[in-house]
Amino acid sequence: MKQHPHLTFLSDFGSRDHYVAAVKGVIYRICPRARITDITHETSPHNIVEAAFTLAQCYRYFPRGTVHLAVVDPEVGSNRNAILVKSSDYFFVGPDNGLLSLVCAREKVIEIFNIEEEDYFQKPVSPVFHGRDIFGPAAAHVANGIQIESLGSSTKEMRGLDFPGISKPEPDTLLAIVIHIDRFGNIITNVRCEDLVSEEHQRKPRFIQINEVSIKDHFQYYEEAVKGELFSLFGSAGYLEIATRQGSASELVGAHLGTQVTVYV
Amino acid sequence: MKQHPHLTFLSDFGSRDHYVAAVKGVIYRICPRARITDITHETSPHNIVEAAFTLAQCYRYFPRGTVHLAVVDPEVGSNRNAILVKSSDYFFVGPDNGLLSLVCAREKVIEIFNIEEEDYFQKPVSPVFHGRDIFGPAAAHVANGIQIESLGSSTKEMRGLDFPGISKPEPDTLLAIVIHIDRFGNIITNVRCEDLVSEEHQRKPRFIQINEVSIKDHFQYYEEAVKGELFSLFGSAGYLEIATRQGSASELVGAHLGTQVTVYV
Amino acid sequence: MKQHPHLTFLSDFGSRDHYVAAVKGVIYRICPRARITDITHETSPHNIVEAAFTLAQCYRYFPRGTVHLAVVDPEVGSNRNAILVKSSDYFFVGPDNGLLSLVCAREKVIEIFNIEEEDYFQKPVSPVFHGRDIFGPAAAHVANGIQIESLGSSTKEMRGLDFPGISKPEPDTLLAIVIHIDRFGNIITNVRCEDLVSEEHQRKPRFIQINEVSIKDHFQYYEEAVKGELFSLFGSAGYLEIATRQGSASELVGAHLGTQVTVYV
Repeated sequence: MKQHPHLTFLSDFGSRDHYVAAVKGVIYRICPRARITDITHETSPHNIVEAAFTLAQCYRYFPRGTVHLAVVDPEVGSNRNAILVKSSDYFFVGPDNGLLSLVCAREKVIEIFNIEEEDYFQKPVSPVFHGRDIFGPAAAHVANGIQIESLGSSTKEMRGLDFPGISKPEPDTLLAIVIHIDRFGNIITNVRCEDLVSEEHQRKPRFIQINEVSIKDHFQYYEEAVKGELFSLFGSAGYLEIATRQGSASELVGAHLGTQVTVYV
Repeated sequence: MKQHPHLTFLSDFGSRDHYVAAVKGVIYRICPRARITDITHETSPHNIVEAAFTLAQCYRYFPRGTVHLAVVDPEVGSNRNAILVKSSDYFFVGPDNGLLSLVCAREKVIEIFNIEEEDYFQKPVSPVFHGRDIFGPAAAHVANGIQIESLGSSTKEMRGLDFPGISKPEPDTLLAIVIHIDRFGNIITNVRCEDLVSEEHQRKPRFIQINEVSIKDHFQYYEEAVKGELFSLFGSAGYLEIATRQGSASELVGAHLGTQVTVYV
Repeated sequence: MKQHPHLTFLSDFGSRDHYVAAVKGVIYRICPRARITDITHETSPHNIVEAAFTLAQCYRYFPRGTVHLAVVDPEVGSNRNAILVKSSDYFFVGPDNGLLSLVCAREKVIEIFNIEEEDYFQKPVSPVFHGRDIFGPAAAHVANGIQIESLGSSTKEMRGLDFPGISKPEPDTLLAIVIHIDRFGNIITNVRCEDLVSEEHQRKPRFIQINEVSIKDHFQYYEEAVKGELFSLFGSAGYLEIATRQGSASELVGAHLGTQVTVYV
């Protein structure tokens, strides 16, 4: 039995309905000592890519042994699998729809299980709320220190995600896209720090083009810039961002998820 | 003293102001070991029916002995009572304005107390914030295992709620209304699974009419449907819902709280 | 080691992104027994005054020894200091940009430290996320009961805040402004109960003017009023508020942050 079992919980359930609380209630019934941290429940409804990205940015800051529960599950009730992934440091519980594939690409995956053993479900199982009846209970039992083999059969397979990559049509040109716009209006691209090595070994772009706007300045932090100016920097998760000081870059350039970004190195 | 005292907290305080945190601070001062779970604080301001419905959908998933604190309290400061309800499995604390009547109709109520003993209040008591000064402290003392008789006098009475019912003008016709629209746009009606027993003993409607739209398909889960199609299903709380696959049914049919729904069985 | 270490967390990070969870993960790695209470993360982006006001309304309800972590930090990455304030009852951690000055004006401040000791940082330190890499870890170490001197050097100075005051052009006239509008639409002014002592020693205004609307009634709680009527009362934090019963006063009079209010006593 772990002394301080930690779980995180990410979903697209929102914060007005009873859904999040029902899942937490079930978890606490099984594991009353748990500490549950919300990642977010404001993921756009059914948006698996957004949820996968958000989880990947923060899961590794939690204590070793944390159980990460993630439920964005448009196929709930169908025959898609429910999975438990054990990595060298964490456990992940969620639907097998690609949601856990980003974190698994970064972790050393030890074993994957299909969650099948009905003795561990909350009954009756609603065909439209596996978060409450299957995933939540499984996560709580893992947090309790159950033998994870007892939850179901081992598997080798897991569905991937069509996470958008960058392309390099010319040696000095990266074609990228906007993968996230945060609360401040910062535009996060799918270009990582390690993608940017220029001939002069500088890890910064020469300039960036987005929606016919050219961005030439690259800073370390926001206050280096003049207000109203657009610039790039590396965000706290290692992605190239377009920002403006104390304002919304996404409003200034009209960027959305999927907007194309060209980076010249 | 309970080993792992659990409380839940539901209100219409929102998440921007300091109100929710002030209540939690008061609770932790009295019961530092508490685990407090937010049900929601996004209930529409002053909407007692909405709060009662939300609490009723999730309270029973929490551990036995959980103290459920619910504060939607437009009459704060007036002479409405503050009550503590002990049921066979839970405690409920809130204003006596109907908010707790839905859960009490489902629970085996053991005893009701008027919360009156000022020794247990946070002082000075603001006439406009009993959540912080009366309800929160009472809930925390109950979580601490206080003799609940010490909080005030026993009572037999409790105010009810005008929760909308269904009517049956013809043997095969149910007149119902929309009681909730969730984050996904699912339309939740006040028809329960047990209200629907047709002659063929099928627990599904023949068809449904809402805003001059006819809905004939009834499924178990969302992925059975074709995108764009409207259908009914039983939601995870046992109510008949109108939904569409990965989209908002309420936008498609223009439904609101109180919209009339006719169900033919 | 404290038995039940309590922390609160206030920021402008919002609830959709991974930022809040990353900070909490870091805190739990250092202090797995912590109980973390969100004050709010919906502070308007970069709005230090709003954050300072919100924290000041609720910090003192928490248990003695609570560590209050507050991060609204537009200058992150620049040479502004990171500070830890020890008062007689609490600890406060945040950027030295005025955010902590309101609470410090109300507390008996014992000592202020610049947070400098890199051994206690989360590494690598991102120049744009000191919440995760500097403030969060510092707060967690304090919650763990570290010798606070080890975090950095003592200092006497701290930046203030341009918190709006009231003026008194005539003996019976107070010029004030709107400092907050809460979720219910209540208009909170910067006039405190103790600012209002009339010749008859009545702690209530004769009348109030805001946006050419005159408000004459003053009540103790909302239900005293007739629906649709505007009135003043003292809110739960001791400020003079303009309200209406079960409605939004700010919509009725068109008030915003900074709107001028004239109070005749």
